[in-house]
Amino acid sequence: MDTLTLQSPLDMHLHLRDEQMLQLVAPLTSQTFSGAIIMPNLVPPVDTKEALIAYKSRILQAIDDHQFEPFMTLFFKEYSKEFLESVKDEITAIKLYPAGITTNSEGGVESIDVISLAPTLNAMSELGIPLCVHGETNGFVMDREKEFMNIYDALASEFPDLTIIMEHITTKEAVDMLDRHDNLYATITLHHLLITLDDVAGGMLQPHLFCKPIAKRYEDRDALLEVALNAHPKVMFGSDSAPHPQHAKEACGCAAGVFTAPIALQVLAELFEKHDKLENLQKFISDNACDIYNIKPLKKEIKLKKYPFEVPAYYKKGDQQVVPMYANQTIQWSLM
Amino acid sequence: MDTLTLQSPLDMHLHLRDEQMLQLVAPLTSQTFSGAIIMPNLVPPVDTKEALIAYKSRILQAIDDHQFEPFMTLFFKEYSKEFLESVKDEITAIKLYPAGITTNSEGGVESIDVISLAPTLNAMSELGIPLCVHGETNGFVMDREKEFMNIYDALASEFPDLTIIMEHITTKEAVDMLDRHDNLYATITLHHLLITLDDVAGGMLQPHLFCKPIAKRYEDRDALLEVALNAHPKVMFGSDSAPHPQHAKEACGCAAGVFTAPIALQVLAELFEKHDKLENLQKFISDNACDIYNIKPLKKEIKLKKYPFEVPAYYKKGDQQVVPMYANQTIQWSLM
Repeated sequence: MDTLTLQSPLDMHLHLRDEQMLQLVAPLTSQTFSGAIIMPNLVPPVDTKEALIAYKSRILQAIDDHQFEPFMTLFFKEYSKEFLESVKDEITAIKLYPAGITTNSEGGVESIDVISLAPTLNAMSELGIPLCVHGETNGFVMDREKEFMNIYDALASEFPDLTIIMEHITTKEAVDMLDRHDNLYATITLHHLLITLDDVAGGMLQPHLFCKPIAKRYEDRDALLEVALNAHPKVMFGSDSAPHPQHAKEACGCAAGVFTAPIALQVLAELFEKHDKLENLQKFISDNACDIYNIKPLKKEIKLKKYPFEVPAYYKKGDQQVVPMYANQTIQWSLM
Repeated sequence: MDTLTLQSPLDMHLHLRDEQMLQLVAPLTSQTFSGAIIMPNLVPPVDTKEALIAYKSRILQAIDDHQFEPFMTLFFKEYSKEFLESVKDEITAIKLYPAGITTNSEGGVESIDVISLAPTLNAMSELGIPLCVHGETNGFVMDREKEFMNIYDALASEFPDLTIIMEHITTKEAVDMLDRHDNLYATITLHHLLITLDDVAGGMLQPHLFCKPIAKRYEDRDALLEVALNAHPKVMFGSDSAPHPQHAKEACGCAAGVFTAPIALQVLAELFEKHDKLENLQKFISDNACDIYNIKPLKKEIKLKKYPFEVPAYYKKGDQQVVPMYANQTIQWSLM
């Protein structure tokens, strides 16, 4: 039987939420990942040292006995250099959301202009704190990421020593940006390597595949696949696994987010194998991220086997019930 | 108070379904419309004279005591001229669906090429039976209608005496086709004059606004508005009102269709008034259709007033419950 061993897999973009949902989803990541960048869009957002430390502590209590490191982030707002110095050792990055662009981002940045953001971004640059960005405008849904490219251009040019991560990129235009600025990097989700808008709304409407940024065109997906499968040194895996309760996903007015945490490694193995690129998965899933963020992950070996696995209809703990991608379907790789 | 009188409003593209759903929705159209083109995509499709006559009779029983004429259509397949002659007086048009393109279209045409369809289309042409077309390819969801334009080109050129209706057009490209062929016409829905993909999937996902063809870009909607508001002589109103049970619309894997029948006239009045084009609504809602189809509708006068109306959360009869567009919202015109 084919097997695969991955060293210290990292999820460089993860939503763990809080309270009961945190209890449900944290172990589903910590069972297979060595660490993850934890997104700060709670209600209220994580924007103080106290909130950050308390959230990290709640996460560590929620991961069962797994060996797992939560790489914490702050919700971007104007921070003083003094504050950033005081919190530097507790955080791995700061995440910038345009206001209202996705779940719990209402307190985000109203207008992204390099002048008003300069004091905070210069301080981050000097202290070596990376900036993670949800790169969408409030334009037409299929154009939002593309329209954001000139903001990335401005940020990358104006702050050449700032490490900037284009989070969950979905377009050919974002892929093309990687070669334009030395300090621009990207995370790519599992689902954006697999689906297009056709999967969300081309047949029946599929709320469990509805996410932000929305899945785009085939040529966009192919551009993402190209850099992911070849483990382009500036891209890394970030699931953007974003749990919502099943009733909220299947209701009228469903929230955006695809829940992939428990099946991400297995499906990535299937995808990379299908394209005969299994040898590049280690870089995509861990090594590139270590280089980009300059981190040393907890040592953790994950073994996978090529053996069918039927994905559960849902994962449940207490009152929380979440439907994963590929629910009730069979995937071709399993955890050993 | 502002009032408006419409003479014999016609809905030139309507789904009435069958059985309990027919009982629920037929009176919601017949209360305000003088007549409607009835789509034949039942299970099985309406493709025999017997099925057609029986369906018409079920419709006439379902419309309460309203004065209303169902303009019947057959589901397109290869028909002999002899058959078409025998059914000519019972039908107003024949509706062509590409196979699998929308609800109950599995029995549609696998490949639309003018050579194989020529015998049927020539017979229709000679007998003066219009062809209604769901014009979408099986390509990427945002491109399906645009990609269909060369099929319209081929049909219109090859059968110059055939009246061809591009049903529920959603793109600028389809609007541009109107001036390219004398024998091409179009219906436009209410919802495609109002929404874009942003309304379906730009914020939360809105299953009740999910339809086929899917709503497109702002420039597409503006092109539709331009010809509708100015009552371009080759366009006419066709609601494509397409009821699905509420549980099917709000479930995982929701069906395509927007239910607008009970609010269509009122919202059209609001829209045309907003753009200061109220004087053109009579043409869009009836006169153009009479000219294009060469029909004389039942005389029916509908009076509207500019007075707020709160749209119900749903319409219900027996086991059937359907959510209309603008459910729980207030629209600015009412029936008198």
